[in-house]
Amino acid sequence: MWERTMKQIRPLSKTWLEKAWERLDNLTKPRRSLGRMEEIAARVVAIREEERPSLEKKEIFVFVGDHGVVTDGVSAYPQEVTGLMVRNLLAGGAGINVLARCAGAGVSIIDIGMKEDLEGAEGLIKKNVKRMTGNIVKGPAMTREEAKKAIDVGIEMAERAYDNGTVMIASGEMGIGNTTPSSAIFSALLPAEITDVTGRGTGLDESGIRHKAEVIEKAFKINRIDIDDPVSVLAAVGGLEIAGICGLFLGAAARRMVIVVDGFISSAGALVAMRLNPTIKEHLFFSHKSSENGHGAFFEKEGLNPILDLDLRLGEGTGAALAMQIIENSIRIYNEMAGFEDVGIEPGA
Amino acid sequence: MWERTMKQIRPLSKTWLEKAWERLDNLTKPRRSLGRMEEIAARVVAIREEERPSLEKKEIFVFVGDHGVVTDGVSAYPQEVTGLMVRNLLAGGAGINVLARCAGAGVSIIDIGMKEDLEGAEGLIKKNVKRMTGNIVKGPAMTREEAKKAIDVGIEMAERAYDNGTVMIASGEMGIGNTTPSSAIFSALLPAEITDVTGRGTGLDESGIRHKAEVIEKAFKINRIDIDDPVSVLAAVGGLEIAGICGLFLGAAARRMVIVVDGFISSAGALVAMRLNPTIKEHLFFSHKSSENGHGAFFEKEGLNPILDLDLRLGEGTGAALAMQIIENSIRIYNEMAGFEDVGIEPGA
Repeated sequence: MWERTMKQIRPLSKTWLEKAWERLDNLTKPRRSLGRMEEIAARVVAIREEERPSLEKKEIFVFVGDHGVVTDGVSAYPQEVTGLMVRNLLAGGAGINVLARCAGAGVSIIDIGMKEDLEGAEGLIKKNVKRMTGNIVKGPAMTREEAKKAIDVGIEMAERAYDNGTVMIASGEMGIGNTTPSSAIFSALLPAEITDVTGRGTGLDESGIRHKAEVIEKAFKINRIDIDDPVSVLAAVGGLEIAGICGLFLGAAARRMVIVVDGFISSAGALVAMRLNPTIKEHLFFSHKSSENGHGAFFEKEGLNPILDLDLRLGEGTGAALAMQIIENSIRIYNEMAGFEDVGIEPGA
Repeated sequence: MWERTMKQIRPLSKTWLEKAWERLDNLTKPRRSLGRMEEIAARVVAIREEERPSLEKKEIFVFVGDHGVVTDGVSAYPQEVTGLMVRNLLAGGAGINVLARCAGAGVSIIDIGMKEDLEGAEGLIKKNVKRMTGNIVKGPAMTREEAKKAIDVGIEMAERAYDNGTVMIASGEMGIGNTTPSSAIFSALLPAEITDVTGRGTGLDESGIRHKAEVIEKAFKINRIDIDDPVSVLAAVGGLEIAGICGLFLGAAARRMVIVVDGFISSAGALVAMRLNPTIKEHLFFSHKSSENGHGAFFEKEGLNPILDLDLRLGEGTGAALAMQIIENSIRIYNEMAGFEDVGIEPGA
């Protein structure tokens, strides 16, 4: 499925970009005085290829997976918390539920790799590819086939959203231990030193962070990866939710939806997608710079500039829900502001 | 009026701050993982002194004034644009109208110092103190009495909002030429070198910026200011809308409303308020770092950290309207998220 999807990802339209800037420069404000909001609006127009794009219908996809490596003590929380948090997400009490309500976005929660089978959990989208990844210090996280299957789950979610009339999607995730595979992916695919992209996750101290870096080093020794083959990296040291996020982005880009990347873990999914298909980069809106160590290195190496910097490190899609609002505000500026000719002012500088 | 108002400004409640952090640390997320949103929420609780503060009723006050110094060529736009833009604001076509709609905030437009008398302009709040400031290279912008009267207009607006049930207010302004008095105020009250706080405004080039700095230097030679007497600075080199903004903040802080400061010009108003009453500083939320040269110097000198950095330099309250949304999202996190005990998770790290 993903090979076909990737062929459908086209660069942004230069014609629509030019059209967008022409309009922006004629709105009643000093030229370019809305800074990044104008850049965002122009990019949205070029993605949507519409005169007045609406971003009203929005959905945040929270992929949930567990990680075998948690038995090696890489997280401040025990694995059971994944299931408890999913119940909290389904009940509407988690951070992302609140911020999605603020953004006017729906929330879809997908079991893509949970250890626990939450039978009867109402509202949970069941797409479990594997009940938890393998412990990466002992072997691969998953097989190549499982990685591709998890990517396909993400693509399927994008398709489902598209069929629904959704125009803006965001990634989110939940999974105790998932900063470890994310750091491993950054290290392999940026590439970067392990210690430059490894941080405290949900709350490790200095010695915990050192241990986590050693775990990743060990995982690279045990598992053969080929950095020119991003799927091999996902399979070796990745996470099922990270693969799902990668697929969501590929599927959404193919369908010209506006894509908002959440924080550290979602960026790891985005990086896999970017290595699979470099064109996708111009489609992605990076919501925020997480306070997780290494996120800054990712943005710097890739020449990207996230929208917000609020020291967030919760995940779930929370940063993306905030950025969705900035993006929607930006397009409403584009759609609703009066032009100079409407009010009789000379455009000026 | 302002002397009485100033006595009513109290520091934030330590008890309420502690209470807020206790709740924040028990919500279902890793401790402090919502970073600045948590700091914002705690501060709102300590301002409002309420268990679950609502920030639903919001108003943005756009003070409009003209500047005699414009005849000295300090702006890229002619003075007539002020009146045309006010008509645009009243018709709902300006940037702030769009973003206020996004934020769910009302917009009040106040003629506090316009040159033109917009007779019959429906919706305009007429509180004109003086039809345009004096040219500051030839004499004072206004008398001390006019400065105090303009501050009182701002306080009156805060009172009116309070009586209305408004809980969060933001500043905004419109006035061709008003970065010049703002730069002069920053230079006098921070204090700072004129060139360190003087920028391009609505669109000056390098030689225009140099000229603007010379104009300010000249204004300081012509007008006697006493930096320990902030009202004298306002009277000598200020603007009527800047005085109004200063008053709005004083009045709103006295009434424990949540205060959102827009960009460069609003920060000049905030600085005057801070010098009149240092306690107000803990009440203010600085919405964004403008791309106007000197705004960064203000934040650095005052040890402040604005919420957003999106290269905005439009004014009108546009940055504040965005930040209002982040602030409201933050308090909704505080009010609506489930606690650890609700879902059976041990708080962890």
